[in-house]
Amino acid sequence: MKKYQRLAQQITEQIALGVWQPGDRLPSLREQVASSGISFMTVSHAYQVLEGQGVIVARPQSGYYVAPRPRLAKPAPPAQVVRDEAVDINTYIFDVLQASTNAAVVPFGSAFPDPRLFPLAQLNRSLANVSKTATAMSVIENLPPGNEALRHAIARRYASQGMSISPDEIVITAGALEALNLSLQAVTEPGDWVIVENPCFYGALQALERLRLKALSVATDVQEGIDLTALEEALNTYPVKACWLMTNSQNPLGFTLSPQKKQRLVALLNEHNVTLIEDDVYSELYYGRDKPLPARAFDASGTTLHCSSFSKCLVAGFRIGWVAAGKHARRIQQLQLMSTLSTSSPMQLALVDYLATKRYDTHLRRLRRMLAQRKAQATQTLQRVLPPDVKIHRSDSGYFLWLELPPYLDASVLSERALQHNISIAPGKMFSTSDTWRPFFRFNASWEWNEREIQAVETLARLVREML
Amino acid sequence: MKKYQRLAQQITEQIALGVWQPGDRLPSLREQVASSGISFMTVSHAYQVLEGQGVIVARPQSGYYVAPRPRLAKPAPPAQVVRDEAVDINTYIFDVLQASTNAAVVPFGSAFPDPRLFPLAQLNRSLANVSKTATAMSVIENLPPGNEALRHAIARRYASQGMSISPDEIVITAGALEALNLSLQAVTEPGDWVIVENPCFYGALQALERLRLKALSVATDVQEGIDLTALEEALNTYPVKACWLMTNSQNPLGFTLSPQKKQRLVALLNEHNVTLIEDDVYSELYYGRDKPLPARAFDASGTTLHCSSFSKCLVAGFRIGWVAAGKHARRIQQLQLMSTLSTSSPMQLALVDYLATKRYDTHLRRLRRMLAQRKAQATQTLQRVLPPDVKIHRSDSGYFLWLELPPYLDASVLSERALQHNISIAPGKMFSTSDTWRPFFRFNASWEWNEREIQAVETLARLVREML
Repeated sequence: MKKYQRLAQQITEQIALGVWQPGDRLPSLREQVASSGISFMTVSHAYQVLEGQGVIVARPQSGYYVAPRPRLAKPAPPAQVVRDEAVDINTYIFDVLQASTNAAVVPFGSAFPDPRLFPLAQLNRSLANVSKTATAMSVIENLPPGNEALRHAIARRYASQGMSISPDEIVITAGALEALNLSLQAVTEPGDWVIVENPCFYGALQALERLRLKALSVATDVQEGIDLTALEEALNTYPVKACWLMTNSQNPLGFTLSPQKKQRLVALLNEHNVTLIEDDVYSELYYGRDKPLPARAFDASGTTLHCSSFSKCLVAGFRIGWVAAGKHARRIQQLQLMSTLSTSSPMQLALVDYLATKRYDTHLRRLRRMLAQRKAQATQTLQRVLPPDVKIHRSDSGYFLWLELPPYLDASVLSERALQHNISIAPGKMFSTSDTWRPFFRFNASWEWNEREIQAVETLARLVREML
Repeated sequence: MKKYQRLAQQITEQIALGVWQPGDRLPSLREQVASSGISFMTVSHAYQVLEGQGVIVARPQSGYYVAPRPRLAKPAPPAQVVRDEAVDINTYIFDVLQASTNAAVVPFGSAFPDPRLFPLAQLNRSLANVSKTATAMSVIENLPPGNEALRHAIARRYASQGMSISPDEIVITAGALEALNLSLQAVTEPGDWVIVENPCFYGALQALERLRLKALSVATDVQEGIDLTALEEALNTYPVKACWLMTNSQNPLGFTLSPQKKQRLVALLNEHNVTLIEDDVYSELYYGRDKPLPARAFDASGTTLHCSSFSKCLVAGFRIGWVAAGKHARRIQQLQLMSTLSTSSPMQLALVDYLATKRYDTHLRRLRRMLAQRKAQATQTLQRVLPPDVKIHRSDSGYFLWLELPPYLDASVLSERALQHNISIAPGKMFSTSDTWRPFFRFNASWEWNEREIQAVETLARLVREML
């Protein structure tokens, strides 16, 4: 073992033994040199290693501090997200998604709502209209930031919620996933710390891995959402650059943050100069009277990147999303030009045509009603069929249920066994780099409840009982 | 100046003075310690800095060597591509592309061929057909790797050239740009060395910057293409991971490598275990009798990633490309699921419908004829109008001309002045991290030659004369 390694190990042990408590200031480099007799370079190297591991934190002009842990969920593997683990996560997503492409599988693990709830005939009519009106130059008019009429239509929907978003700051993307990825890249450098929820949408974890960012997974409650105290602690101790959150109908838990909490969240992040990347793909899928505002509505500074799409509420196959990027709009366009160049032109035009029919809100009202009905039905069926040890966490929006097996069971084992019976579920492991959610799984409740679905749930119940 | 910096500077000076020649083995760390009396760690640090700067190269189990330079074009800035410089490049691309979206600008700088050469009516008919047949489940059938019928159609086009590419290794992407970006990411880690041509398609430089890769720009001749001797030197000295090349109708130069050269290229790369990422978007735009084979055809190992698209020869706005990814197919799909999720479903279906009409080859024959005619016409007009000091480099494929101003002129200055007269060109600076191509610019010759275009060229000629 080299000198710097020995020193790093020593300090780690001291922290484990409580010699240095979370938040304590460590001896400065010079003090450490003086007391240990080791060279400045070796001490500096050891501190850098510890910092890379997330064990200690550097505060400019102040020194090195022991990283706090207690209220934070276990942070992601230090430095770059460990590649192997990420590949594991990808394999899961792969299996779940590939299972969904097999018509024989009952897709309770799917991330998409039942596409039969979407207005296919009307969308096809819009596609047919585009086929009559598209010109040779359409492609050029639809380059980044994207079709002007579409950006105006989106800006008007913001306006109907009382939000002033200029069409000029909206960039059309290949679904919300591209919007989120571009946003993250626009405001971070490799090695930066980014806050995510624990559990969170797996796409966030994948994006962090892809962009070589460090994850701080902050404890998130199934009903109350992210723990703001833990969040504040993280902000106080790590040089966080961005925070990727879902504020409405969070995936996988389902909660919607209260307006007060959104406000406090934004204030907290602004205070620490941390950019909020808001993933709001389920904003249209509320069950109540009013569409909930995004956190962006509470951000007077214009730094929040608000990402959404039509994929979860109108049409998945078009792959059209957007980001209201505020002052980052130009950077986002540049990044898009580098990676996918632009979003397909006929898809943008077809959406413009559809949105002009004014049928969108009628469709959304029906969609929300159907999803609420189906989720209620799914909850009843699951309660009836599953063993009482399985808890069902239900939220009043979207189409996901969050199911909790007894703590000693592993939902990814259930997932494997269910797939052998042509049933997919989305195990908790997909949504976190920590082990916290091992007994949980996400259940897609958007499907029509027929014999096939009921049988599938009964099979699932039998598999759970076998595991008990 | 610190000790290690002083040592590094010393060695750099010695190399400049010829004390150490390119290819020479430097004193080992231990020898250096012994001769200089400096500590092992300081010497090691100095060598690492020099390695990072590309001044010296480490060969495992052998030692440190002076990096050779003579036949290599100036390598890109060391370590991560310098961000500022890249942003400069992006500003150019931005200006050129934004200029193209303005109908008032004569788009000689555009990367797209004249979209009026594309079969709009027939493509629109296919779009209309899709609007009649798309089902709710289409989206799921078109998830990565993409529509099966489309992958089969692409595989059959490979087969018609005598190449055996399985539909299973083809992944449909959002244009070739996404295919190339995913390919690069699939085979590299940040910090890896990647070989590109000098000059090369600017998208390659942007991708390297985005993925934090180090560029080795290898000298590339306007007629003969990449210098294989320089390439071999680079392969012998740097731990290169991938090589991004255009083998047919290279952008911006226009050359097509001979089959022999493609074969030698592939052999050389295989010998060094370097993955070839082949950008072949202009493969259909040959003027001769036979479609040139890609380098991939000469690669028995199946490691070459062959990327292409329909954007430059059939329809740009659909944003449909692909990569024949060989053994990397699964990794590519995973990366796509993480970034854009999938390619839009109606666009894939519309292409399947169009390709089934068998009109594609008829269209391509007409397109090639038209491009050849227009390029000939552009060449004649430019020869007539431009001062004789301006050289026109012309190739027998595609739609670009490569124009060379006298060596003391800067094409980016011409570009700026031309834009003030509503004329865009693509200055050499866009295509290289080195200064080599300052007096050059790319000229899009795909447009119909009317009064407007002739006047624009005359204005361009006047601006050049003013600069002389």
